[in-house]
Amino acid sequence: MFGEFMPEWKGFKAGKWSAGVNVRDFILNNYTPYYGDDRFLAPPTEATKKLHSEVLDLLRQEREAGGVLDMDTKIVSTITSHPAGYIDKELEKIVGLQTDKPLKRSLQPFGGIRMAQAACSQNGYEVDPEIVKIFTEYRKTHNQGVFDAYTPEMRLARKSAIITGLPDAYGRGRIIGDYRRVALYGVDLLIEDKKNQLATALVRMNSRNIQIREELAEQVRALEQLKQLGEIYGFDISRPAKNAQEAVQWLYFGYLAAVKEQNGAAMSLGRTSTFLDIYIERDLENGIITEDQAQEYIDHFIMKLRLVKFARTPEYNALFSGDPTWVTESIGGIAIDGTPLVTKNSFRYLHTLDNLGTAPEPNMTVLWSTKLPPSFKRYCAAMSIKTSSIQYENDDLMRETHGDDYAVACCVSSMRVGKDMQFFGARANLAKCLLYAINGGVDERLKIQVGPKYRPVKGEYLDFDDVMEKYDDMMEWLAKLYVNTLNIIHYMHDKYSYERLQMALHDRDVKRYFATGIAGLSVVADSLSAIKYAKVRCIRDENGIVVDYETEGDFPKYGNNDDRVDSIAVDIVTRFIDKIRKHHTYRDSVATMSILTITSNVVYGKKTGNTPDGRKMGVPLAPGANPMHGRDEHGALASLSSVAKLPWKYAQDGISNTFSIVPDALGKDDKVFVGDLDIDSIAEELND
Amino acid sequence: MFGEFMPEWKGFKAGKWSAGVNVRDFILNNYTPYYGDDRFLAPPTEATKKLHSEVLDLLRQEREAGGVLDMDTKIVSTITSHPAGYIDKELEKIVGLQTDKPLKRSLQPFGGIRMAQAACSQNGYEVDPEIVKIFTEYRKTHNQGVFDAYTPEMRLARKSAIITGLPDAYGRGRIIGDYRRVALYGVDLLIEDKKNQLATALVRMNSRNIQIREELAEQVRALEQLKQLGEIYGFDISRPAKNAQEAVQWLYFGYLAAVKEQNGAAMSLGRTSTFLDIYIERDLENGIITEDQAQEYIDHFIMKLRLVKFARTPEYNALFSGDPTWVTESIGGIAIDGTPLVTKNSFRYLHTLDNLGTAPEPNMTVLWSTKLPPSFKRYCAAMSIKTSSIQYENDDLMRETHGDDYAVACCVSSMRVGKDMQFFGARANLAKCLLYAINGGVDERLKIQVGPKYRPVKGEYLDFDDVMEKYDDMMEWLAKLYVNTLNIIHYMHDKYSYERLQMALHDRDVKRYFATGIAGLSVVADSLSAIKYAKVRCIRDENGIVVDYETEGDFPKYGNNDDRVDSIAVDIVTRFIDKIRKHHTYRDSVATMSILTITSNVVYGKKTGNTPDGRKMGVPLAPGANPMHGRDEHGALASLSSVAKLPWKYAQDGISNTFSIVPDALGKDDKVFVGDLDIDSIAEELND
Repeated sequence: MFGEFMPEWKGFKAGKWSAGVNVRDFILNNYTPYYGDDRFLAPPTEATKKLHSEVLDLLRQEREAGGVLDMDTKIVSTITSHPAGYIDKELEKIVGLQTDKPLKRSLQPFGGIRMAQAACSQNGYEVDPEIVKIFTEYRKTHNQGVFDAYTPEMRLARKSAIITGLPDAYGRGRIIGDYRRVALYGVDLLIEDKKNQLATALVRMNSRNIQIREELAEQVRALEQLKQLGEIYGFDISRPAKNAQEAVQWLYFGYLAAVKEQNGAAMSLGRTSTFLDIYIERDLENGIITEDQAQEYIDHFIMKLRLVKFARTPEYNALFSGDPTWVTESIGGIAIDGTPLVTKNSFRYLHTLDNLGTAPEPNMTVLWSTKLPPSFKRYCAAMSIKTSSIQYENDDLMRETHGDDYAVACCVSSMRVGKDMQFFGARANLAKCLLYAINGGVDERLKIQVGPKYRPVKGEYLDFDDVMEKYDDMMEWLAKLYVNTLNIIHYMHDKYSYERLQMALHDRDVKRYFATGIAGLSVVADSLSAIKYAKVRCIRDENGIVVDYETEGDFPKYGNNDDRVDSIAVDIVTRFIDKIRKHHTYRDSVATMSILTITSNVVYGKKTGNTPDGRKMGVPLAPGANPMHGRDEHGALASLSSVAKLPWKYAQDGISNTFSIVPDALGKDDKVFVGDLDIDSIAEELND
Repeated sequence: MFGEFMPEWKGFKAGKWSAGVNVRDFILNNYTPYYGDDRFLAPPTEATKKLHSEVLDLLRQEREAGGVLDMDTKIVSTITSHPAGYIDKELEKIVGLQTDKPLKRSLQPFGGIRMAQAACSQNGYEVDPEIVKIFTEYRKTHNQGVFDAYTPEMRLARKSAIITGLPDAYGRGRIIGDYRRVALYGVDLLIEDKKNQLATALVRMNSRNIQIREELAEQVRALEQLKQLGEIYGFDISRPAKNAQEAVQWLYFGYLAAVKEQNGAAMSLGRTSTFLDIYIERDLENGIITEDQAQEYIDHFIMKLRLVKFARTPEYNALFSGDPTWVTESIGGIAIDGTPLVTKNSFRYLHTLDNLGTAPEPNMTVLWSTKLPPSFKRYCAAMSIKTSSIQYENDDLMRETHGDDYAVACCVSSMRVGKDMQFFGARANLAKCLLYAINGGVDERLKIQVGPKYRPVKGEYLDFDDVMEKYDDMMEWLAKLYVNTLNIIHYMHDKYSYERLQMALHDRDVKRYFATGIAGLSVVADSLSAIKYAKVRCIRDENGIVVDYETEGDFPKYGNNDDRVDSIAVDIVTRFIDKIRKHHTYRDSVATMSILTITSNVVYGKKTGNTPDGRKMGVPLAPGANPMHGRDEHGALASLSSVAKLPWKYAQDGISNTFSIVPDALGKDDKVFVGDLDIDSIAEELND
């Protein structure tokens, strides 16, 4: 019962956290900031090395098998669907697999049976016909629900790819369960808490409140199953974790249950390293474990995260350039009282890149602040140079809004762990929208009317004011259609594929973000700049549709810290989110926007015709908020400065900048590069 | 395509009905009122006799088997789940069974898997474990959803039976598809119509509009399956019916699809006899069929309706006194221009009671009007005397609200066919509520607090004003709890067991009634009368709970046309519906109330303690709006007059009066009884 200090908590300082669910309070009361360097870190143990070689071998086999090693075709993945599975039971310090075998992809039809079938058939497997029958005749899926409600206009916008990457056939992802709660409280206390939330939920039975009540009941059910998952592997996770190994294991069971239930594009982990450090410190202090063992737990945990896979279709993999899962872990950052949240375990997480080699997953994301301990900054920089596997986010900026216990989902979507969630919303292609403005809603590739039949641009040369007026109208249309499309998706996702377990690891009264996204920002900025500062001639096809552009003269390009064009980018960002905000959003969620396309920009470019900036049909859009490749001619700082002008409060779901740099660009040698001054100055630029 | 006059309609007068769905317009343009007597009616054909003897044999076998002959335990009932089934294929003019065999009860788990399991196990069958798994792990049911959202107070009110008969474990029923549409238009035109409804549905994607869009898509899907059902039996029902036999058959397929999908307590048929008469008249006129054949179609159709059965539990059967299905058919009535809607086929339907013998199903309901043709009135009266199988409803009253194409669902719930639907709501036990008022919310049987902890009555004798004030407060509580409970049920029913096919045979923008009901009205009226006009002493148990009453002196009793008590009944009715109307109702449905307990009053009585009117614990409440048995001491007219005072506009879902009378009570012999005058005078009394 809440209120009593659990025996497993012995040695921890009590606080609000011991009287009710409050992981942040636990961390702040109990963590040990670390200001030292990386010399304490331990190399992999023999067990780790052996296990990891087995993992590498499995991954090699998977590659050789064409990308998929094995697939479930009969067992529908639920929290408790599979018996225990191991890589090498004797060696594993942290156990648990999505199915009964490593890299065997689970069958997740709740998001969409057709997607599940396609994923199987395209890899040479076939879903059991009985399962297909069940999920066709008896159990409707999210995908079916969405397409039932879509309008013809939505289908067309989807087909023409002016709205893209909609999560309408699989899990929407981007929801981070507070998996730490499993370790800190054990499942029984969490069930008690949820039952209390249900007992105190609103009893005026309108649809809104009925939905909440049913969801809470489902959450309790999911937590009961989470306990069973522990039992399947021989653990009693009804009680709190009593040592570091259990803490890692309990936390991982929470995450494992989530990926057994959901196949979202991004199934992120949260902010777990400093939390777990508290358990490790206690065990180290009590002489129960050594640093070798501590690192071993983390190494084995990370190995498990690297094995998380979903059954995907080739189209999905094309969109996301491979098979990513975005198991994002947010590391570091600063507490709101100014002390760094860096612990030894922040180092240990990054150190797995040494012990296990580099890997894109989990997506190690450092919450960067000017106030981070210099030794940690140095270690991050060194590991970045060595592995190119670290992502950086601006903690000083996000902390203002989210406080100090937020985490990043996917690449850039920040939310308070266990308190906020987001409805993921893919992207609107603003570059294509500009072409629609010019052609009066006619798609430049499909040559069919997709947008409204507004007046197209007349005459040979584009006029900036004329194009801007038309573009503004077309964005108005696109924003409305986009929000309505997302409303359907999230209504149906809640109805047919609700994230019971992940939401069970949230507070009851969560803040919901309605995440939208845009693609093609730099193309739009440069195109409008060309129209404004140079002369852009329209080239029309036989039907009068503008299909290409000829530019006479030069024009300022985004990415050179030139306000003439950077201000256009800022203007477009603020205009579009303001248009988004005009519309009703599902569950009264708060509309946000991201400028984020880390990989999908390639596909979006394929589907976007020639643009007035001189980019040719099919050429990839720049990723995220990046300048178009090669157009940022004034160096790294100028390029970053252009990006930094984009107002985060209008794009709170995140602005991504993919930044490759040769060390020489920043100074004479590695020594200078990893020094504080340079890193900080970039960070400061970003902070502006 | 709508707009063209279909070849199957040859001979019909065109109208609004031929340009869009409008069955009423078809009827009024094409029907032939019949003012003659019953001498045209034909006896059963040899085929009918033989088939009916087989049906009787099956029913006998069913009785001998203890009430259930066979049950499906593996095949989940859907519109297309079964191959064709026959009683005797060679003889049947109208075909189609719920499963592949007559009287084999279908498996309907969507309302609740536990109910389906209980129904099977209590009859010695076991639901296939795989089906149980599917409907537990993958496909949630209505029942599970409801109980997820119920509050502890709702569960308690259900347990104590102050709210009873809630449809939270099976289909809610009471929805009448306009099955005539299948015959008149064929399924393809109906699909075209529904697709157009979806194409023109609101595109602002809030939850309300998304729900409507998804439902329309589901309706189209159900219609596609309805066509397949026709194909299973070798018929192409995509096109309109081209003769009488097809019209009956097409219409029946519509109804059959509904009972294959839903197991509502009342699965009523609508108002089909005069519609079908138009086809029969055309065929008779064209010399295609004889009267013998016409009657044979109807006889075979009615036989099929008599075979409609559902898998029920003993508790359900106890509540409803047997195994009723309320296949209510509304016959007769008057058009709003004053011409009777009586046709030869109105006679043919009633004549099945001769040809096939009496039966409770289908529930033949005559829409009674003073303006009905005298010959039809005579025939109804004669058949009533002979069979006791006809129900009467006041058409003159209901026509004012509903026009002339409404029908009755279940016993008394009236709605316009294809234009209105209702959310069925079972009943609040107002007699028990009075006891709660006296005992401050403590249940007199369970001796636990169920209602709010209001102050109980103090002292030895009950004071009318004191009791009324407390009763009013307690009704306020009960009304709110009742509406909220129903809101949950209907939200979950739509979510987990939506009536796709029945709603496909409705217009898009239906009017929704939120039907509530009350039980124990006469007990309440008499109890309050006793408190007011006599002296009622409380007898308390050892805990101070009033468990019995002792009445000194006499008091006026409801059912004697005595305004002193009848006015109390009226007051309670208006008070309670006004309290119901204070609350939010699901989908902005219009709250109505019924005073209707034809059979369940027995069970309600069992669960209601001693009442101040002298009724003892366990004694049945009076059915519907009836006076308590034996207390109406001033003859039939006085009894009917008391009932007739209840204001229909406050109890628009219907007021039922179960009325048994010996012919002598109304005059000297049968001749007088069936005369117009007496019947009319009763009807006029009822009209007031």
